[in-house]
Amino acid sequence: MKKIIVQKFGGSSVGSAERIKAVADICINTKKQEKCDLVVVVSAMGDTTDDLLDLMKQITNTPDKRELDMLLSTGEQVSIALLTMAIQKAGYSAQSLTGWQAGITTEPVHNKARIEKIETKQIKKLLSEDKILVVAGFQGIAQQEITTLGRGGSDTTAVALAVSLKAERCDIYTDVDAVCTSDPRIVEKTGRLKFISYDEMLELASLGAQVLHPRSVETAKYFNMPLRVRSSWNPENNGTLVIERTDGMIEGQRSVRGVALDRQQARLSIIGVPDEPGIAHRIFNELASRNVSVDVIVQCVSHDGSTEVDFTVKREEADRAKEELAKIAKQIGAKQACLDKTVVKVSAVGAGMIDQPGIASKMFKALGDQGINIQMISTSEIRISCIVQEADGEAAVKAIHNAFDLHEIKE
Amino acid sequence: MKKIIVQKFGGSSVGSAERIKAVADICINTKKQEKCDLVVVVSAMGDTTDDLLDLMKQITNTPDKRELDMLLSTGEQVSIALLTMAIQKAGYSAQSLTGWQAGITTEPVHNKARIEKIETKQIKKLLSEDKILVVAGFQGIAQQEITTLGRGGSDTTAVALAVSLKAERCDIYTDVDAVCTSDPRIVEKTGRLKFISYDEMLELASLGAQVLHPRSVETAKYFNMPLRVRSSWNPENNGTLVIERTDGMIEGQRSVRGVALDRQQARLSIIGVPDEPGIAHRIFNELASRNVSVDVIVQCVSHDGSTEVDFTVKREEADRAKEELAKIAKQIGAKQACLDKTVVKVSAVGAGMIDQPGIASKMFKALGDQGINIQMISTSEIRISCIVQEADGEAAVKAIHNAFDLHEIKE
Repeated sequence: MKKIIVQKFGGSSVGSAERIKAVADICINTKKQEKCDLVVVVSAMGDTTDDLLDLMKQITNTPDKRELDMLLSTGEQVSIALLTMAIQKAGYSAQSLTGWQAGITTEPVHNKARIEKIETKQIKKLLSEDKILVVAGFQGIAQQEITTLGRGGSDTTAVALAVSLKAERCDIYTDVDAVCTSDPRIVEKTGRLKFISYDEMLELASLGAQVLHPRSVETAKYFNMPLRVRSSWNPENNGTLVIERTDGMIEGQRSVRGVALDRQQARLSIIGVPDEPGIAHRIFNELASRNVSVDVIVQCVSHDGSTEVDFTVKREEADRAKEELAKIAKQIGAKQACLDKTVVKVSAVGAGMIDQPGIASKMFKALGDQGINIQMISTSEIRISCIVQEADGEAAVKAIHNAFDLHEIKE
Repeated sequence: MKKIIVQKFGGSSVGSAERIKAVADICINTKKQEKCDLVVVVSAMGDTTDDLLDLMKQITNTPDKRELDMLLSTGEQVSIALLTMAIQKAGYSAQSLTGWQAGITTEPVHNKARIEKIETKQIKKLLSEDKILVVAGFQGIAQQEITTLGRGGSDTTAVALAVSLKAERCDIYTDVDAVCTSDPRIVEKTGRLKFISYDEMLELASLGAQVLHPRSVETAKYFNMPLRVRSSWNPENNGTLVIERTDGMIEGQRSVRGVALDRQQARLSIIGVPDEPGIAHRIFNELASRNVSVDVIVQCVSHDGSTEVDFTVKREEADRAKEELAKIAKQIGAKQACLDKTVVKVSAVGAGMIDQPGIASKMFKALGDQGINIQMISTSEIRISCIVQEADGEAAVKAIHNAFDLHEIKE
């Protein structure tokens, strides 16, 4: 059997008839150059989903979840038909497949279903007829019902197909040339990464460099499926390869490889907590049981023997979390619960960091030199994060990016 | 089991969010007043299909038929989701179904498939849960492929569902209040028909009063399914009931009940045909084998013993038919083949006509009084048609409508 490549094109990549023709060219060139079997996953065209939602909102703001999937899944169906026509027009054999035709079975949940299984028999049969297959992203079927996958859905469709078909790799075409060392809207001169590990990508993705959805990266990591992030505007550019280990590919001793800014943070504090053993566990156990997800946590004991516990949550969940925390404060005899919605998280990410002393202090110095106050710190093997005031967020990113000379990365 | 009613709403009836809400009200009122199980069939919203085709034409003018069905079937899917949301928003239980979810199986042909079978098990189960079902018109499934039904598709879906579900009747909502005695764009004061027979409706539909597609009327006639044509803008109006026999419902002795104008006509003549037995059969046999459909036929023998045969064909097929006819003329030793694209067919229709002498002469007199020259005449049990010059078409309709006082019909 020929090698299989899966390519995914996002909404802006197929945003117009012109763009669809350009994407058809990319598909055909890949097929020719790589002499491979090709499966192409597409999202809905540009603003289609928003247009459908606008129309819907004139009818209801609280749609039935099943009907919402019925509505939104049409967007990808339009894209697959048009892209297939464009490929055929250029003289290549192609066929479109909806989620259900492609055998993509999800759990029986609407709006955010996870893929359970892909029955690849039909796809393999069609590939054996040398057809380029164009599959609708974001959608599947469960018990004869159309389901959608929610955020990052099309990326996930592509990775899941690549895994199920044992593809050589999965190309994710987007509107950036590569994964950069930071957000180009913040940092003027960013570096460009030729390779990145799944873990680094996950940290950068979940921290706000929204190139790839964490969900698809997690799936790729689990099955060790190489992803290539590239631009459908500059397809000759090789983009960034996301793989398991980047050791030996990182030039020199560079350890920090990206700086991310997460604006969706809010800080909660519970003050005057009685200093008893197990009290932190009790607080976070209560929060978990009330379905509040916590990110950075800091606990400090003051001289008078009482304790303050600070942590961050997603900003959109902050008000609800505050209410729950106030109840918990009463229960455990703490003084007060406070909420600050004007914080952000700035993070330096790099797989080699753990082996290199001095990274943290260099980062803190860079922030200090700019007069930026660090409210909270958290670290993982490949990341150091600081919670700072929202107003300082972009300056913090620039300072760290500059301190580690990340603009020099041109791998 | 409760009685079942099927309602169908065309593209303009669901052309905007406002219209969709109005249609939801009609559905709910029917459900309440008739205490019935309700199945609703909808077309794509207003210009959706044209918009999709415009987008497509930027890519190709010769789309693959399968991909065209993939593209166009999204239009109805959007409508069913939105109408279902609107019905739910008004507090009623509802569920949308695509063609394949509704069990509508067609022959394995794209763009103009005929419905083979409707597996009603799922629909009946959902109806038993007291849900209003909203089904995508115009589409079905064949061998796991999405198919569309072509022209008049949504009407046909509605009638086929009504037949399969043994519905009490099928309501076809459109943008006219009722079937009129002629086209209101031609005749200022038209009469309004409360009842019409399938055969009359077929004559009027195929003759250009484009309220119902002949295909759906034929199916309704075959299974004797009552159709009610009504307006979604004036749902309180009872519209026109299309049934098998209207005897006894026609007031007085009125026999002509409608006048139609068919502009899609072209006249072909083959001149100087040798007067041999069987020559007409030979001409039309040849035409049929070349796939030319013929409508009105007139043959006349002139004094010199040669024969002229005149007939009409659809105007869009006229050029091709002319070429074929020229070949046939050579074969049989006729002089010449001529084409006139500037003719139209005006027809008086009425189920009671056959029993009433003098109808034809009254019609010819009406035309003669206006100085309109009749080129060809054809009759059936319920119709008299005259071929006239295109420029005389509208005047001919008015003259006949007036001669039979059809504006007085207000059943």
